[in-house]
Amino acid sequence: PSSLNLAVVAGDGIGTEVVEQGLLVLEQALHGTGTSVRTTDFDLGARRWHATGETLTDADLAAIRTHDAILLGAIGDPSVPSGVLERGLLLKLRFALDHYVNLRPGKLFAGVTSPLAAPGDVDFVVVREGTEGPYVGNGGAIRVGTPHEVANEVSVNTAFGVERVVRDAFARAAARPRKKLTLVHKHNVLVHAGHLWRRTVEAVNAEFPDVTVDYLHVDAATIFLVTNPARFDVIVTDNLFGDILTDLAAAITGGIGLAASANINPDRTAPSMFEPVHGSAPDIAGQGKADPTATVLSVAMLLDHVGLPDAARRVEAAVAADLAERGAAERVRSTTEVGKDLAARVAG
Amino acid sequence: PSSLNLAVVAGDGIGTEVVEQGLLVLEQALHGTGTSVRTTDFDLGARRWHATGETLTDADLAAIRTHDAILLGAIGDPSVPSGVLERGLLLKLRFALDHYVNLRPGKLFAGVTSPLAAPGDVDFVVVREGTEGPYVGNGGAIRVGTPHEVANEVSVNTAFGVERVVRDAFARAAARPRKKLTLVHKHNVLVHAGHLWRRTVEAVNAEFPDVTVDYLHVDAATIFLVTNPARFDVIVTDNLFGDILTDLAAAITGGIGLAASANINPDRTAPSMFEPVHGSAPDIAGQGKADPTATVLSVAMLLDHVGLPDAARRVEAAVAADLAERGAAERVRSTTEVGKDLAARVAG
Ligand SMILES: CC(C)[C@H](C(=O)O)[C@@H](O)C(=O)O
Ligand SMILES: CC(C)[C@H](C(=O)O)[C@@H](O)C(=O)O
Repeated sequence: PSSLNLAVVAGDGIGTEVVEQGLLVLEQALHGTGTSVRTTDFDLGARRWHATGETLTDADLAAIRTHDAILLGAIGDPSVPSGVLERGLLLKLRFALDHYVNLRPGKLFAGVTSPLAAPGDVDFVVVREGTEGPYVGNGGAIRVGTPHEVANEVSVNTAFGVERVVRDAFARAAARPRKKLTLVHKHNVLVHAGHLWRRTVEAVNAEFPDVTVDYLHVDAATIFLVTNPARFDVIVTDNLFGDILTDLAAAITGGIGLAASANINPDRTAPSMFEPVHGSAPDIAGQGKADPTATVLSVAMLLDHVGLPDAARRVEAAVAADLAERGAAERVRSTTEVGKDLAARVAG
Repeated sequence: PSSLNLAVVAGDGIGTEVVEQGLLVLEQALHGTGTSVRTTDFDLGARRWHATGETLTDADLAAIRTHDAILLGAIGDPSVPSGVLERGLLLKLRFALDHYVNLRPGKLFAGVTSPLAAPGDVDFVVVREGTEGPYVGNGGAIRVGTPHEVANEVSVNTAFGVERVVRDAFARAAARPRKKLTLVHKHNVLVHAGHLWRRTVEAVNAEFPDVTVDYLHVDAATIFLVTNPARFDVIVTDNLFGDILTDLAAAITGGIGLAASANINPDRTAPSMFEPVHGSAPDIAGQGKADPTATVLSVAMLLDHVGLPDAARRVEAAVAADLAERGAAERVRSTTEVGKDLAARVAG
């Protein structure tokens, strides 16, 4: 592409800090590719909500839709009631733009310290379903605040929704050297949803006969993530289990400061969105302490998505080189220092 | 009590092997206490289901109810469709007998190797709700097997159900030196259920003003379980999050071979049930490879519950001493060898 039309949602807390560095690296990575980037900032998040009561209007959404991709920092602030921004903005974007593949790599880079004593060679990717499951917002409560309150949450799973994400996960597994797919669910308890997932994986496996499939209950999957994470290649799972497993995956591969993610609409009927797994971290916001690496790795995923794999590889290589030398570093660098160093490495 | 009337559900796979050793240690622990044990075996699980199609009949349940407590091994076998025994037997027991407190300690014993490089002093307990949440079996599916299938699972949460388990968790926290309670949920997404949990914890905190409360989203909780598990004292959470967190807790404290649990009916309107966290492990069943330690620690929880804390402490001390010496051992012992050694230590 000759130009990349990027919607930027820096959001709350450290979101603005890490996105600034992500954009710096992106500019550098595009240098010499023939593609230039044009960004539009969207003022969304806590500030906007406090000022206007709005989270994401139809006009915001329509404007965002005209872009090729979205770079998002982080959403959420303690001054806003829990759920308002998450449901009304972050999840609304994922659902409205049909981001049904939430891709989250779990890779332990050389030089990065894992809390695990013997992590092994960790390099997997979680394909988290992004538009169904317990995240649909299909819950409610009666007699709220009384001793007779009943609060329900409904996990909705459709053959349509499960099949498309499972097929995407198989395709990713088929393209990787190990060609292994692990379905994670809890089909011995959540029998209806679980059996739909299981049958779907069995059926789609026929289209990808060279992919080896196994299954783990979500509880058992957490055990393997700390005892033998190297066993995983591609994991496919539902929205909530994926949320839980990917934070754990981030923790064992060096922390959420390094964990990238892509909310992908594979059908390209709307822009995909790239964001670090971490949140807005109000405790360290504004102090230059946030690690922009997760955002920079998300930028690499963005470059892949828009058809610039060489630029993506350069960004990843810059991160890998930077991480390899961190252990020997004399001091912890600030957000902007890490961003500058990564941009310089990309420049070569 | 002069006699302890114990229902024994050895169940499937390694269940029978570990329960045998649990009973051996129990007998030894009761020696000299003035309490004798009388056991009734219940033939429940895969064999019974294959022979009769029954999982847990009304007559079984009525017979079990006449006992003081239940010792359960493990339920589940690959020859039985997933969910049949879990829902029809294990969860049916927990629900029918109103086991609303599912207590699962996360303790790293001296001498036990954690997969974490620097676990610290890990000693917490998870109070997992046992009768509500996504485990209620309130799901269903339409158009099963067609491209238009919709499979739903409903998480049901009531003020009654949440309050009683939260109060129990506060009481446990108040009785511990650190007096700290962590609520784990996902109230930024599961807003109805999550806010009920949050409001309930705030309200019950007024009755336990010396207990310090904090909150973690379930995804963040998994991070802390691998980066700083020593931060936890008492965790209270829902049925599904508790399932996930306690397997992870088991993994970081030496594996599910050591993880005990108690399904408690604190109102004593029905017998409580004690079981290892691990499953039936068909891959190693019948080979004498299962570690009975989790069952033996569950027996200690049983002894506490029936009012024999001294006997409970003796069993725990036997396990602690055995674990402290394992590292130096020349070879891995069989299930029966570990059981015998533990019984001998309890005998003193
Ligand atoms: C902020 C929250 C709604 C979000 C989620 O649960 O998906 C976050 O935890 C994530 O994983 O991106
Ligand atoms: C076997 C299964 C139904 C059970 C559960 O999910 O509760 C088990 O995983 C456990 O933790 O006791």
